[in-house]
Amino acid sequence: MKSKLIHEGEQKTYALILEKGDEVVQELTQFAKQHGLAASHFTAIGALKNAVLGFFERERRDYKKIPVDEQVEVLSMIGDIALSRGEPKLHAHAVLGKADGTACGGHLLQACVWPTLEVVLTESPRHLRRKLDEETGLALIDLSAGENG
Amino acid sequence: MKSKLIHEGEQKTYALILEKGDEVVQELTQFAKQHGLAASHFTAIGALKNAVLGFFERERRDYKKIPVDEQVEVLSMIGDIALSRGEPKLHAHAVLGKADGTACGGHLLQACVWPTLEVVLTESPRHLRRKLDEETGLALIDLSAGENG
Amino acid sequence: MKSKLIHEGEQKTYALILEKGDEVVQELTQFAKQHGLAASHFTAIGALKNAVLGFFERERRDYKKIPVDEQVEVLSMIGDIALSRGEPKLHAHAVLGKADGTACGGHLLQACVWPTLEVVLTESPRHLRRKLDEETGLALIDLSAGENG
Repeated sequence: MKSKLIHEGEQKTYALILEKGDEVVQELTQFAKQHGLAASHFTAIGALKNAVLGFFERERRDYKKIPVDEQVEVLSMIGDIALSRGEPKLHAHAVLGKADGTACGGHLLQACVWPTLEVVLTESPRHLRRKLDEETGLALIDLSAGENG
Repeated sequence: MKSKLIHEGEQKTYALILEKGDEVVQELTQFAKQHGLAASHFTAIGALKNAVLGFFERERRDYKKIPVDEQVEVLSMIGDIALSRGEPKLHAHAVLGKADGTACGGHLLQACVWPTLEVVLTESPRHLRRKLDEETGLALIDLSAGENG
Repeated sequence: MKSKLIHEGEQKTYALILEKGDEVVQELTQFAKQHGLAASHFTAIGALKNAVLGFFERERRDYKKIPVDEQVEVLSMIGDIALSRGEPKLHAHAVLGKADGTACGGHLLQACVWPTLEVVLTESPRHLRRKLDEETGLALIDLSAGENG
């Protein structure tokens, strides 16, 4: 993955270009840690050689894995980065397009890029924090702290 | 729903976190009215316990309702807020992911969040206005007024 | 297509409203050339009366065409504009919703708007450049030049 800061203000915008063979969750999480991202959001398009999507099952309190073992277009990837136990945590959902044009999608668990994934990420100057939700076992963004505006 | 201003410049960025049971159109419209939003755009991901989508039927000049009566991932929600008769009006389209990974979607008429919906909204300093389009009966964004750049 | 600058800072935000009969790739490319866009990203929603989507076939090193000959909702359109041989080049992926609520999508080759397409585009002050990738024959965004941050 390569990165370029395309706007530097109080709010920063990065272009992140993932390359053949890059693992999406890993690369974006590593970038987030290196740059101390605490309140980012992003969109992306590109293509993958395979992926594992998730669907959250309420009863199991866990993600059912949906493997996608074929070349797909990334029609849409939308996500955010917030702090979870003090570390940047990625949350992304993807819509993937198959060779026949049909679309599938889910929570992004794993994705291997081929040949490119073009991400535009905006980092805001404040923080978002995740907190364990007892009912689901998920770390949800929590705005109940005092600093919210 | 809780909100946090994560960037305050001439253009503002809000994180809006909807919680279990929140009705999306209602919560976002109420926020837009309270904050006088007049030219906003947003993206969101999360999950819903049910929704009603719409498909605009040209002949009927109205939306056909597509009920989604199951837990779904919000793979993508993209929308904007513009003024219609002086009041902020929400326009959002959603792509939803089912348990088997298939995707469906439409114009967002109704959506009940479970357990979270993470919205990042940008409010611009100028105005967008909707105006009735006679042919369709829809209020479309109209940039024909003098102030356009 | 009509345009309005809704935020003018070092980074600019435009609302671009496409109208009945407008061809999406053509209109956005023309706007990009007129305004010298060199590092833009955008999202859009709306509806089309028909479209041609593409799926990149690795063996053929070309896009397979997927015609969509019916009225569809644009559930999501995400894209960027970068320079290719010194000229602004559009890259967009779309998720389309059919009358029964099913979703399809692909690389956007052609799309005829009806009745509206609402695009919000952000232009950043720096440049992104595409460069021919020998293996695929595609012009991919290349951040290997010296100026990357």
